Amino acid sequence: MTQVAIVMGSQSDWPTMQKAALMLKELGVEYKAQVVSAHRTPNLLVEFAEGASENGIQVIIAGAGGAAHLPGMIAAHTHLPVLGCPVRSSQLSGLDSLLSIVQMPKGVAVGTLAIGEAGAANAGLMAAQIVALQNTNVRDNIVAFRAKQTETVLANQRLELDE
Amino acid sequence: MTQVAIVMGSQSDWPTMQKAALMLKELGVEYKAQVVSAHRTPNLLVEFAEGASENGIQVIIAGAGGAAHLPGMIAAHTHLPVLGCPVRSSQLSGLDSLLSIVQMPKGVAVGTLAIGEAGAANAGLMAAQIVALQNTNVRDNIVAFRAKQTETVLANQRLELDE
Amino acid sequence: MTQVAIVMGSQSDWPTMQKAALMLKELGVEYKAQVVSAHRTPNLLVEFAEGASENGIQVIIAGAGGAAHLPGMIAAHTHLPVLGCPVRSSQLSGLDSLLSIVQMPKGVAVGTLAIGEAGAANAGLMAAQIVALQNTNVRDNIVAFRAKQTETVLANQRLELDE
Amino acid sequence: MTQVAIVMGSQSDWPTMQKAALMLKELGVEYKAQVVSAHRTPNLLVEFAEGASENGIQVIIAGAGGAAHLPGMIAAHTHLPVLGCPVRSSQLSGLDSLLSIVQMPKGVAVGTLAIGEAGAANAGLMAAQIVALQNTNVRDNIVAFRAKQTETVLANQRLELDE
Amino acid sequence: MTQVAIVMGSQSDWPTMQKAALMLKELGVEYKAQVVSAHRTPNLLVEFAEGASENGIQVIIAGAGGAAHLPGMIAAHTHLPVLGCPVRSSQLSGLDSLLSIVQMPKGVAVGTLAIGEAGAANAGLMAAQIVALQNTNVRDNIVAFRAKQTETVLANQRLELDE
Amino acid sequence: MTQVAIVMGSQSDWPTMQKAALMLKELGVEYKAQVVSAHRTPNLLVEFAEGASENGIQVIIAGAGGAAHLPGMIAAHTHLPVLGCPVRSSQLSGLDSLLSIVQMPKGVAVGTLAIGEAGAANAGLMAAQIVALQNTNVRDNIVAFRAKQTETVLANQRLELDE
Amino acid sequence: MTQVAIVMGSQSDWPTMQKAALMLKELGVEYKAQVVSAHRTPNLLVEFAEGASENGIQVIIAGAGGAAHLPGMIAAHTHLPVLGCPVRSSQLSGLDSLLSIVQMPKGVAVGTLAIGEAGAANAGLMAAQIVALQNTNVRDNIVAFRAKQTETVLANQRLELDE
Amino acid sequence: MTQVAIVMGSQSDWPTMQKAALMLKELGVEYKAQVVSAHRTPNLLVEFAEGASENGIQVIIAGAGGAAHLPGMIAAHTHLPVLGCPVRSSQLSGLDSLLSIVQMPKGVAVGTLAIGEAGAANAGLMAAQIVALQNTNVRDNIVAFRAKQTETVLANQRLELDE
Repeated sequence: MTQVAIVMGSQSDWPTMQKAALMLKELGVEYKAQVVSAHRTPNLLVEFAEGASENGIQVIIAGAGGAAHLPGMIAAHTHLPVLGCPVRSSQLSGLDSLLSIVQMPKGVAVGTLAIGEAGAANAGLMAAQIVALQNTNVRDNIVAFRAKQTETVLANQRLELDE
Repeated sequence: MTQVAIVMGSQSDWPTMQKAALMLKELGVEYKAQVVSAHRTPNLLVEFAEGASENGIQVIIAGAGGAAHLPGMIAAHTHLPVLGCPVRSSQLSGLDSLLSIVQMPKGVAVGTLAIGEAGAANAGLMAAQIVALQNTNVRDNIVAFRAKQTETVLANQRLELDE
Repeated sequence: MTQVAIVMGSQSDWPTMQKAALMLKELGVEYKAQVVSAHRTPNLLVEFAEGASENGIQVIIAGAGGAAHLPGMIAAHTHLPVLGCPVRSSQLSGLDSLLSIVQMPKGVAVGTLAIGEAGAANAGLMAAQIVALQNTNVRDNIVAFRAKQTETVLANQRLELDE
Repeated sequence: MTQVAIVMGSQSDWPTMQKAALMLKELGVEYKAQVVSAHRTPNLLVEFAEGASENGIQVIIAGAGGAAHLPGMIAAHTHLPVLGCPVRSSQLSGLDSLLSIVQMPKGVAVGTLAIGEAGAANAGLMAAQIVALQNTNVRDNIVAFRAKQTETVLANQRLELDE
Repeated sequence: MTQVAIVMGSQSDWPTMQKAALMLKELGVEYKAQVVSAHRTPNLLVEFAEGASENGIQVIIAGAGGAAHLPGMIAAHTHLPVLGCPVRSSQLSGLDSLLSIVQMPKGVAVGTLAIGEAGAANAGLMAAQIVALQNTNVRDNIVAFRAKQTETVLANQRLELDE
Repeated sequence: MTQVAIVMGSQSDWPTMQKAALMLKELGVEYKAQVVSAHRTPNLLVEFAEGASENGIQVIIAGAGGAAHLPGMIAAHTHLPVLGCPVRSSQLSGLDSLLSIVQMPKGVAVGTLAIGEAGAANAGLMAAQIVALQNTNVRDNIVAFRAKQTETVLANQRLELDE
Repeated sequence: MTQVAIVMGSQSDWPTMQKAALMLKELGVEYKAQVVSAHRTPNLLVEFAEGASENGIQVIIAGAGGAAHLPGMIAAHTHLPVLGCPVRSSQLSGLDSLLSIVQMPKGVAVGTLAIGEAGAANAGLMAAQIVALQNTNVRDNIVAFRAKQTETVLANQRLELDE
Repeated sequence: MTQVAIVMGSQSDWPTMQKAALMLKELGVEYKAQVVSAHRTPNLLVEFAEGASENGIQVIIAGAGGAAHLPGMIAAHTHLPVLGCPVRSSQLSGLDSLLSIVQMPKGVAVGTLAIGEAGAANAGLMAAQIVALQNTNVRDNIVAFRAKQTETVLANQRLELDE
């Protein structure tokens, strides 16, 4: 059953947001991905967000760029935890996306990750960490992923001077 | 009949947003003001924005601070022109509010004014300039306001040194 | 009859500003476009802005970059609504352009759109929304444009992983 | 049993971070709060973070200001979801805190909330939303909190002009 | 005969701009000060700037805040050297003023000083340095001012610990 | 006789700073250009700046990037007017260069131009405007340059849509 | 014998810079403090920096605000390690000071600490850490200071809700 | 014997950080370089930092990008002087890296160098300056390096116009 939903404001956000999908897949979490635009499909946004809980979704990952209203508006229509991914914008390097997502007023929360692909991957990881609270398989996968990651750093020590 | 609607995300935005109301009143434009929160009353937002045109509104002024989603989400639900007012936020001086309002994606537009009270007053002025395209009384009021403003600058030339 | 004027500070702004022209054309609004430099042709600026209303213009779109004085100075010489487009500058990504346009003092207003091409297209859209208040053909075109835009988002859901 | 741990880099962060505690209390979630400094008590940090899961903690909220390393370093030592709160710094308004917390590299995630008290309150809310995935009492409390919040906005419409 | 003109966008800029006047007075340079608003008295701006050279002015100091168009527009209407003073704005600490003044396009120049009172005083100093190229009295005054300034620094060495 | 000196912190600044030289050449002003590094040739800096006035220099143009100390330190060692050019830095787009040059304390002034090539060209223009106060040939050249510039803008109006 | 010199651009920097002095005193390091202005006493700067090594100084701490050239210019005239302290500026919160100090070009280095009092205290600490490489008394004092600091954090855990 | 340790958060930081290594090599200082990730190998970080002094290290250079916690966490676990290098991040040009490293709280210090390669080279230089306090060979090498650097600037004066 789908545990995590990934939504994004535009298909052009997919190269960034698929990093969340790849992470969820690696950690054994079921997900679905969909384009939902806060500004161009506002009714779909309401329908999606209000139905998410009933559809068995546990965490929603929402990515958008510029005046990035999608994560906050999703959060306004659900009680599920929402993770926000600032997509790098062409003009201001994603600083506008970051501030538009993270500076939510008291009472409606979005847990925001880093700008760009690293943040999208971490949204997948954090969604898995939430799912893992009730799912020992996912927890074991996270433990293994983190251990492998540590090993990879330790193994990569080729530091030769380019003279 | 009400020509302009002023909405804001929180009652705490009123000290700023009433500058729009005062300008409209000075220029002889009928308005109504209301709190509509994108995050805390999202259904009211949809209802308000979708009904505005039928209710005879010609221009909507929307003010909000921080992750300021109200103006853009109003614009997503109406074909009327929407003017956005970044309210000064307590943390980042309104830069977050400004970027959240102005950096809209192609296809849904918000005409954004300056941060804080000057911008709110100018939202009232610009709304009146739009109304004036069909209303010669309002146009005359604008001409008179601008002339008076010029006179005020010319008359205030007390520039004495504080030594 | 020309309903909207598009002016820009330099011919090099045209690749950005033509997005406003293309949007107006798509929405059936008559426009003309012209280079008017606040700093290099200041007298033309005054002549243009003071004559715009008599020439039947209803909305002026002005784009400029860097110390972008054109939109504000146009607004100082007309009572028509002025929309400002911050053109992306080569040094500071258009943040200088944005602040130079949006931070107008009380009493002279510029409705500012996003930095770059998206903002220019939205200036065209917003000008059309203002024209549409008196023109049902343009209003119908906007409704159709927005509906088509929504359909396009819904139809584009090719989200396959690049593995 | 304690479900959420709130840690902060300094006792001076408590006026901000207690907003998380107050929210958790309002939503019926058990929590404990503690000062853990990444720089001044680094061994305590490791001990705390590595023991959190065994101590029954489900979510960790970490707040810090300036070069805010606490949330990210906690996340490096646990598989539990970590929420980060940028505390407003005296020099750069919390922009340094925000960037130090949110810009985590791929592989270790921190879900970041807004700068200051609103963000701390929302960290409490989001932690409760995560707990609520397994706890219907907390979920009911969130639903009630959100409904009350909506009513409060609707009830506060005293918008009188100060003339 | 007046050698330097000080203009500013609003009487509220005078507390800042009088630091230029005080410096010019100290250095024995004749000046006059006047409010000229780019946006609210655009015709006065043209008249002032185009007549400055004939009126014997050698340097123009222009101060403004926010979307600070005055210095650049003065420069567009004269061949005299123009010095720009970014007045601290209430919202963005004068960063908007600074960028609006300094980022002029090729072909029309404004020599920009620091934000606020220090910059205004230095505009007076730099105007005097320009006048001094043809005026040995002013040059001697500058030499004396600079020597006294050095002595003042050397004489102020009371560095006692507040314990 | 050399009227204007152009100095820069590194030979790598020359592609930017030669725009000042080209402007001076176009306007008929004699100049010399030289690399003087505040940090790597500090003694040369002192020697150059202290001797400039005796060598007949009237204006010094100084360009530097990053922690750009050259213009301010030149100004500390001379009574001549100093114009500063922020060279675009590889990391922060020249914002660091701009702030390092423009934010001088009271008592030592640098007239700062825009970041990059446009600012360098304008430093040449402004130096010529200062020289022109005593030199009618240069003044006539400036008038002609400005007139030609205006004509160029008016003549370039090829605004065709790329459809 | 004096081991560390503290210099600052203005007596007004002393309330910040004395935090360096207090830290050195606490750690048993001999220091002297002096006002040396890069812009107003440039010759003193050269004399001070070139003589520092001969005078037995091992580390120089330099604090300045705005266009903060003092640390970098000191570093240009000595081979001793130089630590830079960005003093909070009245206009841009010390961001200008920070960038002016830290962004040094390759070949002349300044080790930069945080903006304001915390950074000044840490400059004292870091100078002591350098001195401690040859001085076991100072090293013991640092170990004791750090241990006491850790204890202080652990002892301060009064986290009571203000309800 | 190794005098300086260079650590970095990821092998991808090596192209930047090897500039520190090259400088140390040029100045005759023994170093070793190693990848140590604050987030992915936190236990290695503790082990490395706590053992550095016993291993004869005198100075630690730590480079990292984004939420750059490595330098500060190293400093939390050692009494040796730590120099921090902000590696240019892909999203925010290294401003996030800079603020994450430099804005340390009182009591744990990191001497921070410029963003990118120039800063890494200067970290090597500054580490050598610290080592040179006890090592006259290294001091002589620094004197020679600085003299050669000055000569190189003086010798490079090919400033020809590209016309």
